[in-house]
Amino acid sequence: MIHDAVPPAKSGRRKRRGSGHTERSSEPGQNLHLRVPFITRNIPTYDLLDEGSLEKIEATADRILAEIGIEVREDEETVRLYREAGASVTETAAKAWRVKFEPGMIREILQTAPAEFTQHARNPANNVQIGGKAAVFAPSYGSPFILDADGTRRYGTILDFENLVKLGQSSPWLHHSGGTICEPTDVPVNKRHLDMVYAHMRYSDRGFLGSITAPERAADSIEMCRILFGAEFVDQHCVIMGNFNTTSPLVLDGVTAAGIRTYAAAGQGSIHLPFLLGGAVSPLTMAGSVAQCLAESMSSCALTQLVRPGAPAVLAGFLSSMSLRTGSPTFGTPEPALGSLVMGQLARRINLPLRCAGNFSTSKMPDGQAMQQAMMSMMSAIQGGANYILHSAGFLDGLLSMSYEKFILDSDMCGALHAYMKGMEVNEDTLAFDALAQFGPGEHLFATDHTLRHYQTAYWDSGMNDDQPWETWAEQGKEDSALRANKRWKKILQEFEAPYLDPAIDGALKDFIAQHKASMPDAWY
Amino acid sequence: MIHDAVPPAKSGRRKRRGSGHTERSSEPGQNLHLRVPFITRNIPTYDLLDEGSLEKIEATADRILAEIGIEVREDEETVRLYREAGASVTETAAKAWRVKFEPGMIREILQTAPAEFTQHARNPANNVQIGGKAAVFAPSYGSPFILDADGTRRYGTILDFENLVKLGQSSPWLHHSGGTICEPTDVPVNKRHLDMVYAHMRYSDRGFLGSITAPERAADSIEMCRILFGAEFVDQHCVIMGNFNTTSPLVLDGVTAAGIRTYAAAGQGSIHLPFLLGGAVSPLTMAGSVAQCLAESMSSCALTQLVRPGAPAVLAGFLSSMSLRTGSPTFGTPEPALGSLVMGQLARRINLPLRCAGNFSTSKMPDGQAMQQAMMSMMSAIQGGANYILHSAGFLDGLLSMSYEKFILDSDMCGALHAYMKGMEVNEDTLAFDALAQFGPGEHLFATDHTLRHYQTAYWDSGMNDDQPWETWAEQGKEDSALRANKRWKKILQEFEAPYLDPAIDGALKDFIAQHKASMPDAWY
Repeated sequence: MIHDAVPPAKSGRRKRRGSGHTERSSEPGQNLHLRVPFITRNIPTYDLLDEGSLEKIEATADRILAEIGIEVREDEETVRLYREAGASVTETAAKAWRVKFEPGMIREILQTAPAEFTQHARNPANNVQIGGKAAVFAPSYGSPFILDADGTRRYGTILDFENLVKLGQSSPWLHHSGGTICEPTDVPVNKRHLDMVYAHMRYSDRGFLGSITAPERAADSIEMCRILFGAEFVDQHCVIMGNFNTTSPLVLDGVTAAGIRTYAAAGQGSIHLPFLLGGAVSPLTMAGSVAQCLAESMSSCALTQLVRPGAPAVLAGFLSSMSLRTGSPTFGTPEPALGSLVMGQLARRINLPLRCAGNFSTSKMPDGQAMQQAMMSMMSAIQGGANYILHSAGFLDGLLSMSYEKFILDSDMCGALHAYMKGMEVNEDTLAFDALAQFGPGEHLFATDHTLRHYQTAYWDSGMNDDQPWETWAEQGKEDSALRANKRWKKILQEFEAPYLDPAIDGALKDFIAQHKASMPDAWY
Repeated sequence: MIHDAVPPAKSGRRKRRGSGHTERSSEPGQNLHLRVPFITRNIPTYDLLDEGSLEKIEATADRILAEIGIEVREDEETVRLYREAGASVTETAAKAWRVKFEPGMIREILQTAPAEFTQHARNPANNVQIGGKAAVFAPSYGSPFILDADGTRRYGTILDFENLVKLGQSSPWLHHSGGTICEPTDVPVNKRHLDMVYAHMRYSDRGFLGSITAPERAADSIEMCRILFGAEFVDQHCVIMGNFNTTSPLVLDGVTAAGIRTYAAAGQGSIHLPFLLGGAVSPLTMAGSVAQCLAESMSSCALTQLVRPGAPAVLAGFLSSMSLRTGSPTFGTPEPALGSLVMGQLARRINLPLRCAGNFSTSKMPDGQAMQQAMMSMMSAIQGGANYILHSAGFLDGLLSMSYEKFILDSDMCGALHAYMKGMEVNEDTLAFDALAQFGPGEHLFATDHTLRHYQTAYWDSGMNDDQPWETWAEQGKEDSALRANKRWKKILQEFEAPYLDPAIDGALKDFIAQHKASMPDAWY
């Protein structure tokens, strides 16, 4: 296991911002008291719907699965597994089957799925819990483009990918390295996953997501984990997850189904995500979208338990809306935020971890629109009780683009959410009667014993927001938050030091990648 | 009463964006189905603390009032009223009295205060409910400066004030004209209130706040309402409110106390706001800040009931934090957001309407920081159940500055919150089983009967956010949201038509102002 191989002397060398073990400096944004490998929520969930409404949604999900069913394409093994578990199967076309489930059947199958599990990181201090009261922030996922600060859009490259892994690793407010932070479009499609997984392993010491674009790429991702963690460890522990999209409405395609089976068979985690654009691939009304989301995600989760009971599976929802004047998808809007809150309620009732929402936006700049939309969406994730929050940093342009600047601003916001999720402690000390009594009415509290005792940890200290007086800000050049973020990421990359990796393991990973790359011609589709 | 004097033919002439009675056009941001004179919340409140913690906070507030007490300065009549009601009073200095209240006494006095009341507007269609499930958005209040889009800061003028009243009136997502939208620093201090109240009466037909900077200015504000609404109507209805700040910690100064008495005696509304900068004038720990907030606000509210039982009084809280490295106040931060949620719980327990939070920010630009901070703060207001939300539009620079651009962006966000507060309807139609069944797995829902039935009202349509594809946005000049907002407010002011006002009443108001201005020399303090 790699974590046994980290020499103690080296672990102190890890770069300042990521470790949580540095001393407080005068630099803004330290907040050492808030640093954790993942958040343990200390605030209640915000429960939007009452019991009766939730039951109606669940009954609709059951009815969708029983009366309409899902269509499985191409993957006969998945069809066999569902049929064996009791589903009714009808072949509707060549390599396409309609699979229907009696009400309650999927929930029964899901009894073996863990309500909470650990994803192990190569640095065990960065292991994360997925489920229960845990919340894990991971960068955005899947954008083909990079949007530069001036609004120029260009294709992402492997250099961008590595940069973004480094930025993630450098933020104390993210907990997980994510997956396809951007598409490295300069690497052949059939070899991309090797470079991506390697970048996560080399430049981050946190958990990450593996490839899902083909079953053999999923297998490669897991094989690389065996090199990093040891094969035995991987068989017994979750060290990687795959993020799988259903093909909404109500289709599970063959590549996805086979990928899910690959992760589950290896005992690794999988996330089961319907990407629901309301009006296009799901109903326009949020109650219907949520019912469909539950039906699709839970039937996909169930597949993992048919492959390997106990394999970690994560219920998921990506709810979005559209501009009904233009047909454009919209993100960071109010209705999906409400839907995410309800997905939280449903996940707790079915006792599965949840991935939901993130820092969504349709803006093409890291501007006011971007951060307002992001915040509305992100609040729904954390208040709704989402456990794994992908798209926590960098999301712009309706997920078509990754932004370095928004990555920085979002990460800082994730820090603020650490303070938010700590909740409010109420005890004699925090009630602070003595603080008011010490000097009495009309007197400042700066010098009270209570203030002196608490001043270092009382409030979130943003590393990005400018709270200075206007005069100081103006003297310093009137920078807006986008420009500050632009300077910040450049500085972070300049100062980045990769976390220690045993050279023997690094060599083995490189050999594996070289062999695999040599074994096949480049493919660009 | 002025609303009887509005000729029906003229009311159709009111400008497009404010009335809610126009036809849907292809212009973005219409959302006719969401337009209301005020929001009636259809989402649950987000209750952060359990019963036991709330009781501890209430007990601490009671203990503050009983053992430390509040200091009343200069206003003997207020001291007399508190003493007569049973408070213990000790003169501690010349014109300064320590007033202590036995636990439960303030709550007993507040029994006569209405849990909910109507503030009447000159256009009765714009009357607002304050309390219960109602939420009312009003512009920011009290900034001496205007921050222009390029970061230039300058003093506000009466022209700015009028412009901002017009912008507020033009937004369907604000419900109330507010008060001192910016300080009109070019008008003498002792005459400013006349021009401000007139601007609200002339350029808006919504409710507004009157002057509180001196008892005679409060009286003038109410007298102008008697001209506008008729004296008898004013005696029987709330048509104006004053927003009063306690002098934290735990002081009620003479001007404020006399102003509160003036509004209450006239049967008009008053808001009782401790402006609590944690660490400076309240404890750093939020539980203590909230306890102090409750103690100060409820004892101030109680004064109104001693003057005129049944007078409308609004509990209030303005919770903020500070940068503990620099001592700068910070706004839009996580801890005060939690505090605002708890203030909501406390207000419901004491059965009073609540003013709390708003679109707070310390940014000096309408940038990502501004909107992220604003959203975090604003969500706490609406989830916490605040009823009157001042500072809903325009707040920058820690309240030192008003921004036209942020006013526009915030107002649009207030629109999104209309959709959010509608909540999620769950019924057979919204569950939309038939929509999925109509074409089945793998088929788009664009053409389903369900989509066609709902597409006009399903989602919030922002009037400011750019949801277009990057290509279109780039062709149109790559504008960020601040630049769009800059263009928007200029267009709105250009097209503004003031709501109809009976010329006889307008003349009487102008006479009143002229007489009062002539009766005293200019004063600039």
